[in-house]
Amino acid sequence: MKNGGGEMMRQNLVSIKDMNKDEILLILMQAQKFSQGESWRAGEQTFVANLFFEASTRTKTSFEVAERKLGLEVIPFEAGSSSVLKGETLYDTVRTLESIGVNAVVIRHKEDQYYKQLVNKVNIPVINAGDGCGQHPTQCLLDLFTIQQEFNRFEGLKVGIVGDIRHSRVARSNAESLRKLGADVRFSGPPEWFADDYLTAGDYMELDRLVEEVDVLMLLRIQHERHDGGAEMTKEDYHQMYGLTVEREQRMKPGSIIMHPAPVNRDVEIADGLVECSRSRIFKQMENGVFVRMAVLKKVLEGSNSNELVNQKWQYSC
Amino acid sequence: MKNGGGEMMRQNLVSIKDMNKDEILLILMQAQKFSQGESWRAGEQTFVANLFFEASTRTKTSFEVAERKLGLEVIPFEAGSSSVLKGETLYDTVRTLESIGVNAVVIRHKEDQYYKQLVNKVNIPVINAGDGCGQHPTQCLLDLFTIQQEFNRFEGLKVGIVGDIRHSRVARSNAESLRKLGADVRFSGPPEWFADDYLTAGDYMELDRLVEEVDVLMLLRIQHERHDGGAEMTKEDYHQMYGLTVEREQRMKPGSIIMHPAPVNRDVEIADGLVECSRSRIFKQMENGVFVRMAVLKKVLEGSNSNELVNQKWQYSC
Amino acid sequence: MKNGGGEMMRQNLVSIKDMNKDEILLILMQAQKFSQGESWRAGEQTFVANLFFEASTRTKTSFEVAERKLGLEVIPFEAGSSSVLKGETLYDTVRTLESIGVNAVVIRHKEDQYYKQLVNKVNIPVINAGDGCGQHPTQCLLDLFTIQQEFNRFEGLKVGIVGDIRHSRVARSNAESLRKLGADVRFSGPPEWFADDYLTAGDYMELDRLVEEVDVLMLLRIQHERHDGGAEMTKEDYHQMYGLTVEREQRMKPGSIIMHPAPVNRDVEIADGLVECSRSRIFKQMENGVFVRMAVLKKVLEGSNSNELVNQKWQYSC
Repeated sequence: MKNGGGEMMRQNLVSIKDMNKDEILLILMQAQKFSQGESWRAGEQTFVANLFFEASTRTKTSFEVAERKLGLEVIPFEAGSSSVLKGETLYDTVRTLESIGVNAVVIRHKEDQYYKQLVNKVNIPVINAGDGCGQHPTQCLLDLFTIQQEFNRFEGLKVGIVGDIRHSRVARSNAESLRKLGADVRFSGPPEWFADDYLTAGDYMELDRLVEEVDVLMLLRIQHERHDGGAEMTKEDYHQMYGLTVEREQRMKPGSIIMHPAPVNRDVEIADGLVECSRSRIFKQMENGVFVRMAVLKKVLEGSNSNELVNQKWQYSC
Repeated sequence: MKNGGGEMMRQNLVSIKDMNKDEILLILMQAQKFSQGESWRAGEQTFVANLFFEASTRTKTSFEVAERKLGLEVIPFEAGSSSVLKGETLYDTVRTLESIGVNAVVIRHKEDQYYKQLVNKVNIPVINAGDGCGQHPTQCLLDLFTIQQEFNRFEGLKVGIVGDIRHSRVARSNAESLRKLGADVRFSGPPEWFADDYLTAGDYMELDRLVEEVDVLMLLRIQHERHDGGAEMTKEDYHQMYGLTVEREQRMKPGSIIMHPAPVNRDVEIADGLVECSRSRIFKQMENGVFVRMAVLKKVLEGSNSNELVNQKWQYSC
Repeated sequence: MKNGGGEMMRQNLVSIKDMNKDEILLILMQAQKFSQGESWRAGEQTFVANLFFEASTRTKTSFEVAERKLGLEVIPFEAGSSSVLKGETLYDTVRTLESIGVNAVVIRHKEDQYYKQLVNKVNIPVINAGDGCGQHPTQCLLDLFTIQQEFNRFEGLKVGIVGDIRHSRVARSNAESLRKLGADVRFSGPPEWFADDYLTAGDYMELDRLVEEVDVLMLLRIQHERHDGGAEMTKEDYHQMYGLTVEREQRMKPGSIIMHPAPVNRDVEIADGLVECSRSRIFKQMENGVFVRMAVLKKVLEGSNSNELVNQKWQYSC
């Protein structure tokens, strides 16, 4: 457990691995309530800051809307014009925000497990909005929520994850969580991206067979910006070999759905015309992201308002 | 008609050309009410995002204040740190914002008619805050409002527009609208900027005569950033030949006014000392911009809340 | 007096030098009330903008939180995407914001005394959040507040200021204000940074003696970004010669405190392990910054709402 177990689980969300099945299902249940119009307020004026050290439209905006819907005051933070430029550490930046009165931080950072500098060290909740090639727990939760909304179960569901598992912070979290919840997870995509991977060992399927068997087809974004370059295939070749073509979509089972974390590379991972087709839940995923993030924010803010935390004082020692 | 006629006119404001005389006058009337303290609220929590892909203080801040005065929640969007950097299209960006819960977008973009990718394709109103060398309808409306506030009529009013018509998104919209409303519009400035222009054919006047005849003198900003460079005249020469010098201002008619969309190049388009002189409405224009934008936001948000639009569902087809 | 004396003092806060002892103590008293939970609202919807032309986390966020706690509407302003890029002057930018409806501006700018372009020229309050190597009055006030909170007096208190006085906008303001309030101020640090300085003449002490005598030890940040480079000593050497080492801290008087404006260069100005030690008020200073800024905002907004200012019209003359 990365953040010291159940005690701190009320206060942070840094990794989906730290959450057991019940904790996951509780978040999904709360997200469901929010999607049906339930409202919740943190009480008196509560401040959050979104620290995005990597480019993002979707996740940042989604958190921002979620925060506003909960009546939180969102304090702007621009990584590019912050004291991080003067060499300040992430710890000092977050301790500063804590001192100034910020009640929770949402962070995206390119460093794997950046949150180890913070958890159990700062006294406000940290929500991980993506760390390097590591975790992206709210994306995982919104994917799970979208599946639950559709099928109302995970047990026995067949899920195919297609693409660049190795560089995807979504793929690993999703695969592990889905298996924890009882789903049967298979993988496809360029074989060289699966070599020596414990997750995918034995579970690789040819895409042309996979599309016919799955209830959920999760396409992954090609992370051009995380690859070293090198001799890669063309976009057209990728699409034909590992993408969801119009032809492949037609062979999918009735009732099966298509997911993608976005932004989509149109005509690469998925044919342009399929992005908004009737099977696609791509924009639904984005809509659901807001409700899941509201549920996560509620959870950590309620946790950090509990008596034991309010009474906990900083222990200074020289 | 760019956006498909009256049906969608309630939902977007992309070009002043799409508005007839009555529609323009209704906006001005509502702006007048807002300037007198009328308030209007969109109802429950309503989200807008301002997508400015080009630098702007005036327009962006003006929209922001207008939005806050209407009680809207403004979701920050920084073009420089958005997924546009990952190659996402404008359409996907706006559809994302729509999915996340944003109820209207205001966009400035350097591409002419960028809005053709959006109108009738996304389901939330688009307000154009400037496209390339094309339209800037809220600037046009605030100019019209400032003139109406001063003279209480357009019919028979003589308006001179001076400067770089060809590169100005303000000039063309203003000239066409003013003529639609009955004003007599003339042009001046460097002749090479008027060659082969349908707008200005036959309506060119020497500046020294023009300043004596007009009720409204609209100076245009020299768009250094849109010119290719080349052998242009010095700032001093421009000022002497085509700028409003102190001497020229003294020959203007009693009651005539000076306008400029700003930012002003002081001592180029207008003598430094005239920027805040008694004839100048330059800062008044900025003040009026907020009221006009409130009126436009009210219009599109009322339109998009109408039953027929709420009932309109996205038609997905594979 | 930089801003024309008492008349305008109600409207701006540009320099601590303009404030007399009573004015300073009134701000501290109000900050104390805010720290104890007092609330104050500016009345109807009031807009402020924070114009930070230099990188800052602490100060900008602190103002932002202070503004929200007073119920102000904070209009975002990003220097990097503003019309300043089109060559607009600071005066025109602030006049624009004023016209658009902004009721007060907070400015950080790298130019010394940038505010001389604004004070008595624009009609909204200007709060200086740092000018070049000049003033940083709210930092000074929060330092004074932190000292008063600790000792409940200034008279007879011995304060040591250590480091790069010459490049610090904090050091000079603090030294002058502390002397005005009756404290005994001494200096230490690299002697070459004190040459020919009226402030420090005769008041230089060896650091090893200073640490044993002071009630308050104020460490200054090494402003790497303001130095020309050149042959400077290593960080390790600086720490051993002029930094607060663990050994030096152990010789400090009982009840004495450590201050630093932050961001801290750990193991340079102060040993890493001392940053959050029991003597340290470094994060307390940040917490106090919010209350002091609330007090300053209240002061200038009350001033600018007074009748004489509301009735004051702009005098245009050609």
